[in-house]
Amino acid sequence: MRILLVGAGGTLGSAVRQALVARGHEVIGVGRSGGDLVADVTDPQALARLYTEAGPLDAVAVAAGDAVFRPLGELTADDFMTTFRGKALSQLELVRQGARHVAPTGSFTLVSGIVAEEPILAGAAASAANGAVEAFVRAAAIELPPQRINAVSPTVVEESLPAYGPFFAGMEAVPADRVATAYVRSIEGAQTGQVYRVR
Amino acid sequence: MRILLVGAGGTLGSAVRQALVARGHEVIGVGRSGGDLVADVTDPQALARLYTEAGPLDAVAVAAGDAVFRPLGELTADDFMTTFRGKALSQLELVRQGARHVAPTGSFTLVSGIVAEEPILAGAAASAANGAVEAFVRAAAIELPPQRINAVSPTVVEESLPAYGPFFAGMEAVPADRVATAYVRSIEGAQTGQVYRVR
Repeated sequence: MRILLVGAGGTLGSAVRQALVARGHEVIGVGRSGGDLVADVTDPQALARLYTEAGPLDAVAVAAGDAVFRPLGELTADDFMTTFRGKALSQLELVRQGARHVAPTGSFTLVSGIVAEEPILAGAAASAANGAVEAFVRAAAIELPPQRINAVSPTVVEESLPAYGPFFAGMEAVPADRVATAYVRSIEGAQTGQVYRVR
Repeated sequence: MRILLVGAGGTLGSAVRQALVARGHEVIGVGRSGGDLVADVTDPQALARLYTEAGPLDAVAVAAGDAVFRPLGELTADDFMTTFRGKALSQLELVRQGARHVAPTGSFTLVSGIVAEEPILAGAAASAANGAVEAFVRAAAIELPPQRINAVSPTVVEESLPAYGPFFAGMEAVPADRVATAYVRSIEGAQTGQVYRVR
């Protein structure tokens, strides 16, 4: 398959790219500052250009998103908006525009995260954005067929512990290649509207 | 208790106001164009003025929110943004700012909706916004104590069937006064981080 992978250069994205290439897929990596294609996916117009540049696609997968982690009492209105744009609206817009570009039997694989169900201190904005992604996946799944849509919801990945470990005290980490397996399941499988939790 | 009720003049809000007044509470109703206080709660600056005008509060409850219902293929990027602002960001901001204005043992009661779990055609934007609200409630509940926060998630209410019935074909409606009971439970009870589903 020909797969557009957003965030292909990140910690998780690198593992997803590797897993997909190992399965014989062609991966077109998208990054904000590098990759096969460069785009700021939080900008709807940049997304339109991205899809034009990408050409025919069998699948779109997202392995990155930006969220502000800050105690609730210190979060600003802008932090909420930035997090919605960086983690939720960007992914919704990828699907909204992508439905016209992806093959009729193609799929979308979005990324949420454990904090949608299991909150952590300083994670309220991220929780909200992830909850939006998961509910959207369930809803879009009844309107997109024959295209499919799922989300992968990882806990913190081992390779990100230096940066995010302190936020996830006492929560088990998983290696990025285990999370990547869920992307393969979403893209090669036949289910839709699912949230694949990797814990 | 002294309770700020956003959307007090709406179908659900009227039932909530009635239930709270019947329990002996003082209700300060907020509407966009009428009520005890007038404010556009999607505007953070208007919210700041609202809290200043409202004075001391024991609870904040929301009984209204704006969402765009349109088939996924017809939704625009603006529809997503409008729905996030109207149903999710407005409520998050009510809590963010309200934490400084509500009594230490006070509470917040937000509103989500059945489409967070049970999608309907044309409801993808609303699903996303409601999913955000529910995940935020779970997250804020671990940072707000001793203040509490819950959400009420109604299915379609009987009194709204003329407007929304076609979207909820084959789904049972509930009378607004049953939904109002869940607000009483959230405000007078001791739980936090809950989503009270009224189905």
